Amino acid sequence: MPSIFSQIIAGELPSVKVRENDEFLAFLDIRPVTPGHTLIVPKKEVDYFFDMEDPLLEHIWLFAKPLAQALKRVTGCERVAAVVAGFDVPHAHLHLIPASDMSDLNFAHATPSTPAELAEMGERIRQALSA
Amino acid sequence: MPSIFSQIIAGELPSVKVRENDEFLAFLDIRPVTPGHTLIVPKKEVDYFFDMEDPLLEHIWLFAKPLAQALKRVTGCERVAAVVAGFDVPHAHLHLIPASDMSDLNFAHATPSTPAELAEMGERIRQALSA
Repeated sequence: MPSIFSQIIAGELPSVKVRENDEFLAFLDIRPVTPGHTLIVPKKEVDYFFDMEDPLLEHIWLFAKPLAQALKRVTGCERVAAVVAGFDVPHAHLHLIPASDMSDLNFAHATPSTPAELAEMGERIRQALSA
Repeated sequence: MPSIFSQIIAGELPSVKVRENDEFLAFLDIRPVTPGHTLIVPKKEVDYFFDMEDPLLEHIWLFAKPLAQALKRVTGCERVAAVVAGFDVPHAHLHLIPASDMSDLNFAHATPSTPAELAEMGERIRQALSA
C-alpha cells in the first residue's frame, strides 16, 4: 500500500502543491502549525529520513531554499523553521514552518485549515516563487 | 563579536565535540532535549540557516547522516529527529535529537547535563562513529 504521500504525489489524493521537480514535491500541510506550513517529500518513498539516498539528502535543502524565501515573504514570519520528525506518516518528509518565535514550533498547535484557506495560501506561495 | 558557536569552533569555549570536518562541527548541546542531543554548525558563521552557501546546504545532511546512525545505536531511540529553529544563537545550526515519539521533541524539556554526563555521552558517540 503506497503511503498517503505517495498517493498525493500520484494525484490520487488531493493536495495544494507549491513546488515540484523530479525528486521532490512540496505541498501545504492540511493541519498547519502556522499558516504556510509546507511539507517537502521525496517522490521515491522511503520511511526514515536518513535512509534517503545521498543525492536526495544533498538536494533537499536546495529545493527548500526558494520555498523558504517565498514563505517568509508571504507570511511575514521572522524565520522559516524546519523539522524532520517522522512519527506520523511513514514517508520521509521535511516540515517548513513559518515562525516568529520558538513557541510557533509547537505541533500541538496544528489546526485544520479549510480548503479555501489552503487554496489561497498555495496561490500566494506559488506567486511569490515565480516573482 | 564572534558567536558563542564560533568561540566553540575556535576552541575558546569548551564543548564535547563528536564530529568535525572542514565545513562543520558537531558537539553536544549542554541542555539536551533528550540525551545525545547534538548541534551541527557550519564553521563559517552565518545567522539564518537558509543563508548558508549552497555547498553547505548540500553537505550538511551527509555530515549528519553517520552521526544520526551513531546516535540511534547509542541511545536506542526509534528515530533521530532534526530541527532548524534559530531563535536562540544567531549562528545557523541543525539540532539532531534522539526521539522515540513526538513528545520527545519538546524544547521545554531541555535540561542541563553535568560535564561528566556530557563527556560520557560524547565518548560513546565517538566510539559508535568509529565502529
